[in-house]
Amino acid sequence: MKRNIAVLQGDGIGKEVTRGAVEILEAVAQRYGHDFEFQYGEIGGGAIDNTGSPLPDETVEICKNSDAVLLGAVGGPKWDNQPAHLRPERGLLKIRKDLNLYANIRPISYYSSLSESSPLKKEFIEDVDFVIVRELTGGLYFGKPSERVEREGKEAVVDTLFYQKIEMQRIIELAFKLASDRKKKVTSVDKANVLESSRMWRETAEEIAKDYPDVELEHMLVDNAAMQLIKNPKQFDIVVTENMFGDILSDEASVLTGSLGMLPSASISTQGPNLYEPIHGSAPDIAGKNLANPIGTILSAASMLRLSFGLENEANAVEQAVETVLDYGLRTGDIANGQSNITSTSEMIAEIKANL
Amino acid sequence: MKRNIAVLQGDGIGKEVTRGAVEILEAVAQRYGHDFEFQYGEIGGGAIDNTGSPLPDETVEICKNSDAVLLGAVGGPKWDNQPAHLRPERGLLKIRKDLNLYANIRPISYYSSLSESSPLKKEFIEDVDFVIVRELTGGLYFGKPSERVEREGKEAVVDTLFYQKIEMQRIIELAFKLASDRKKKVTSVDKANVLESSRMWRETAEEIAKDYPDVELEHMLVDNAAMQLIKNPKQFDIVVTENMFGDILSDEASVLTGSLGMLPSASISTQGPNLYEPIHGSAPDIAGKNLANPIGTILSAASMLRLSFGLENEANAVEQAVETVLDYGLRTGDIANGQSNITSTSEMIAEIKANL
Ligand SMILES: CC(C)[C@H](C(=O)O)[C@@H](O)C(=O)O
Ligand SMILES: CC(C)[C@H](C(=O)O)[C@@H](O)C(=O)O
Repeated sequence: MKRNIAVLQGDGIGKEVTRGAVEILEAVAQRYGHDFEFQYGEIGGGAIDNTGSPLPDETVEICKNSDAVLLGAVGGPKWDNQPAHLRPERGLLKIRKDLNLYANIRPISYYSSLSESSPLKKEFIEDVDFVIVRELTGGLYFGKPSERVEREGKEAVVDTLFYQKIEMQRIIELAFKLASDRKKKVTSVDKANVLESSRMWRETAEEIAKDYPDVELEHMLVDNAAMQLIKNPKQFDIVVTENMFGDILSDEASVLTGSLGMLPSASISTQGPNLYEPIHGSAPDIAGKNLANPIGTILSAASMLRLSFGLENEANAVEQAVETVLDYGLRTGDIANGQSNITSTSEMIAEIKANL
Repeated sequence: MKRNIAVLQGDGIGKEVTRGAVEILEAVAQRYGHDFEFQYGEIGGGAIDNTGSPLPDETVEICKNSDAVLLGAVGGPKWDNQPAHLRPERGLLKIRKDLNLYANIRPISYYSSLSESSPLKKEFIEDVDFVIVRELTGGLYFGKPSERVEREGKEAVVDTLFYQKIEMQRIIELAFKLASDRKKKVTSVDKANVLESSRMWRETAEEIAKDYPDVELEHMLVDNAAMQLIKNPKQFDIVVTENMFGDILSDEASVLTGSLGMLPSASISTQGPNLYEPIHGSAPDIAGKNLANPIGTILSAASMLRLSFGLENEANAVEQAVETVLDYGLRTGDIANGQSNITSTSEMIAEIKANL
């Protein structure tokens, strides 16, 4: 199989971790007889420095001509005081729009070998296995007006939470599809006791549930969801929610199992290539020091193999290799939990490759 | 001292827990020579059944004529399918507006005797002691338009996040005042990389910080805050944020220490009486069974003594009595954590009173 992969390394540790994923993808290609071509594009702070834009047109072109996109991470203190349109994160928001990425999928899984590094007691997180499906194109992120206003002579400000019904339908539909192949439960999170948009969201979920009679639909208020994620994360299978609630809850969920540096994500396009990236940020403090955990990005590459290329065996092989090295006791600093023997980024990559 | 206290019992366990707080307040009055008069008003589902409104005008009158308001909890499955304006929660939103309650204050504290019932490992929550200050009058809760719309012939919906600068100023000012008397750190939570309202919030926080040179101001993005609350809750002193973020983060924070049933809250008015209520809900499943934990409401009454009446010694005495009975090992079901010897609501109240 021949595939074009766009690689956007981004800032901070983005370079190191994407390099790891590319090495693993190359090893997979060789082992299984595929042909993966890598095209590199700029995004984030580095792109601002070199081109004046956090997402140059050329990068968008490279992505659109690819079969899938691999992203590292963007941002860093250097660009923190830039005006909004010259901030690295703008590149992220823009690529979501430009590539029609409407759904961010984040599996939250438990690694028994890592239970030590979780803030939660083992009995609360053991065997946790759920997926947060976050809407990416609507809500407060892109609604207009978003501006300073004057009301009755006083300074004020307005942001707008806007959703088309069709945006709700397609993401909730995806959630039900995913649940069908899993534990058959969808938890739809909203704030229907306050927001009109949430009431439309809830209705839409009810409508779509009719097409999936074997999947259970549960509604949960966002404040309660924020509690339940901590009190009883095992209750969840698929959690689906709108953009801002998803931003907050998926980050909350990502620290439950103590394995933030290991968690992959996939952003699904309505048409065109999907984008795969680790959940963690650009970690400027450890950038370039061969200390970053490459596993989140390597597992993102495994998701790419499965979801974009349909290569289930290859994806499983990568995931299996990761489990194996963890079982050996290899640990980058973020998951070392006091263990003195710390594995470097490059060693971790080499070991995963050797265990493919 | 003579004071009028409005008591809104509400639904579910609201009756039992407010009865407990009233008993304690009466005991305090007797012991310290005060005269507390209690006036009862209806709110929530019961009020809907009896008057057709979740917050009858009469209740608002009673509150306005009081020196402080004590609230139990509202809601229950009976009213879950009512239209929005006939839902018990509407009573809560309306009383916030009618009494000008602009700030909800929620202390999150650690009880060493309860560390067993927390989902978090002891080393993460030991000595946790922070306060979430949530804005209550603005944001997505009351902004207009909040309605279904048609855009380009398609079904859509809009909600509006609206803030006056003055609403931001007064709540952030309150946060700095509280921090001055504590650990002198304010964490202001926003989403300034996406929302214009958050950028105004951040600017406002910077402006007010100038008047408090001995208080440290830190900005934190809401998604990061949702992580940090779990990863390292000890870092916080005062957390201040807008209405919806505050709703989510304060509920998240309330389950960290395993003592949801014990946590009080105070809602502060720009003028007129403050309102005090426990954080927990109406728990219809255990209502009327003498099983509810009255401590959250009793500690809310202690906050009333301190914040509304300036009775610091009396407030301390109530808090001390609660600590004492916990040290004895008395536990209602929610904090029993497997212990077989469960204390009833009425016993718990009697014991706290006996230890005043
Ligand atoms: C950087 C920021 C705009 C972005 C978001 O809020 O979507 C990030 O937090 C994320 O979750 O990918
Ligand atoms: C009942 C609901 C409207 C309310 C809110 O969102 O403010 C509740 O969750 C709270 O936090 O008091």
